[in-house]
Amino acid sequence: MNYLTQDKLVIVGAAGMIGSNMAQTAIMMGLTPHICLYDPYEPGLKGVAEELNQCGFEGLNLTYTSDIAEALKDAKYIVNSGGAARKAGMTREDLLKGNAAIAEEFGKNVRQYCPDVKHIVVIFNPADITGLITLLYSGLKPSQVSTLAALDSTRLRNELAKWFKQPADNIVNCRTYGGHGEQMAVFSSTTKVNGRPLVDFIGTEELPADEWDKLRQRVVQGGKAIIDLRGRSSFQSPAYLSIEMIAATMGGRMFRWPVGTYVNNSRFRHIMMAMETTVDKNGVTVQPFSGTPEEEAELDKSYRHLCELRDEVIAMGVMPPVDQWGELNPNLMQPTAPDAC
Amino acid sequence: MNYLTQDKLVIVGAAGMIGSNMAQTAIMMGLTPHICLYDPYEPGLKGVAEELNQCGFEGLNLTYTSDIAEALKDAKYIVNSGGAARKAGMTREDLLKGNAAIAEEFGKNVRQYCPDVKHIVVIFNPADITGLITLLYSGLKPSQVSTLAALDSTRLRNELAKWFKQPADNIVNCRTYGGHGEQMAVFSSTTKVNGRPLVDFIGTEELPADEWDKLRQRVVQGGKAIIDLRGRSSFQSPAYLSIEMIAATMGGRMFRWPVGTYVNNSRFRHIMMAMETTVDKNGVTVQPFSGTPEEEAELDKSYRHLCELRDEVIAMGVMPPVDQWGELNPNLMQPTAPDAC
Repeated sequence: MNYLTQDKLVIVGAAGMIGSNMAQTAIMMGLTPHICLYDPYEPGLKGVAEELNQCGFEGLNLTYTSDIAEALKDAKYIVNSGGAARKAGMTREDLLKGNAAIAEEFGKNVRQYCPDVKHIVVIFNPADITGLITLLYSGLKPSQVSTLAALDSTRLRNELAKWFKQPADNIVNCRTYGGHGEQMAVFSSTTKVNGRPLVDFIGTEELPADEWDKLRQRVVQGGKAIIDLRGRSSFQSPAYLSIEMIAATMGGRMFRWPVGTYVNNSRFRHIMMAMETTVDKNGVTVQPFSGTPEEEAELDKSYRHLCELRDEVIAMGVMPPVDQWGELNPNLMQPTAPDAC
Repeated sequence: MNYLTQDKLVIVGAAGMIGSNMAQTAIMMGLTPHICLYDPYEPGLKGVAEELNQCGFEGLNLTYTSDIAEALKDAKYIVNSGGAARKAGMTREDLLKGNAAIAEEFGKNVRQYCPDVKHIVVIFNPADITGLITLLYSGLKPSQVSTLAALDSTRLRNELAKWFKQPADNIVNCRTYGGHGEQMAVFSSTTKVNGRPLVDFIGTEELPADEWDKLRQRVVQGGKAIIDLRGRSSFQSPAYLSIEMIAATMGGRMFRWPVGTYVNNSRFRHIMMAMETTVDKNGVTVQPFSGTPEEEAELDKSYRHLCELRDEVIAMGVMPPVDQWGELNPNLMQPTAPDAC
């Protein structure tokens, strides 16, 4: 088998549904033979490792451990789905605080055990925050930590394909930027349907304004819909897409969707959010993009929402105030992206 | 993407954990762009289709339906994991009878809706029986219906790799034939560990006889161990291996493990069981193999167990007596395999 790299890839949260799918996906995509599974839940972790070993893969060096130091030693790539799920009786704030604390510990572990890591993809919720905290405490460069932000765009493509009764391939360049779900900024001006701009359809009888609103709502509620249908949270699509992201950082195929990345320019200050990027061996690089004035206003609004969320976490005490970030990670005080964005 | 075929592949039981993994695996392996998901449970089926569409695959023609006639129309390849799971209060006989009835209906549907199907892999339990019933009622040739039988062999490889602290690649040609689990016949004389025959280790201090017995027991209990560890039945390994099987029938990479296939020769009469085979565009062909006298005796014993199970199902009335099989499927009365086996 031809592997993209011989570097060590660590799957954090490997005992879970997303993590175990990520591991299988990474093996099948031929990213690297050296895959280490980490999870604090030892029985589940062992069960996943056993399952994968029972697939009979060739050339695979699969290891697993519940010792984070051992897992991260010599790690060059990490995908982290290791957040806590919301449990009965938990408030949104409880979940936020819990996962923020997990991200802080993870970032510190990265700094201590694998400062030479090349790239980390963070996908546990809320990823814009957990990714930001990971970046802050790891001391890595903004290009080295990204978050899964593609699902809103792939869900938009899927909803448009169903609406127009077209193969999904005929729906090109779906793009949502900024935050996720309710907070996403849909850049419909970027999208073409069968070669025609999507905006030419919106508000016509082919896609009446109220239907477009409903369609957007279905995108926002895409995750909830999966839970309603399957009785479990979406796991195949986040797992697959996050492995596509890390593959791109290994020099694999171009990643085709927006990516959550740290931005600090004259317009967006010290925030992690979905942007247009290139993802390659240099990590994530923000690319210029633009929308209609309405879309740009929507993105500004999305940015402000994310700032509020960030400041809420700062108020919780998990992150220091922005003006102190430079002490933890000087890279975060540098300008990151073209001001045009 | 280069696909192995443009033929339609149907995943039966696609709403389940195994089926949904099979679908993702088939897409990622590039078997065919034309994949149809079938499951009688509509919400779960739709949820799986949505998840897969939200992966953003290119060139994929993914359809789904709870109408078996629509699903099977023009089907050329089918993988079926659509059995019922054992529920609380169900006896072993209840499960057997239920899944036997499901297999009968499936076989009849194949005969009616896709008599030109090229190959079917059946994996729901007990696969030796459900595969046999599918073959009987479908009217297909023995080479066209196979069952998943590789897991005992991959589990043996895994246990030997752990025992000898070797990479799994150094454990070569693990083979169990006949039935599954308790009924399997382990052909340890076929296996090499680091180039040395496994039998040279057994009974020495490198692998004492009692440790070998325990190791075999761990193989037999491999499925139960996964349930204990993960809190759910094994799904990644059966899904992956069954897709590897169907890929081989499409002309893909050689399948490297024993396959459950119909055998009717002078030694084994009218039975479906794990054999040495080749799997290619011609379907499954039994190959000669032999073991030590003890191993051959174990295989005979395994065969007798399978006959008892088959006769139990006949007594239940789901299958007619063997001497009437010719009326349903004349192919089953022909000799199938070299008598040497």
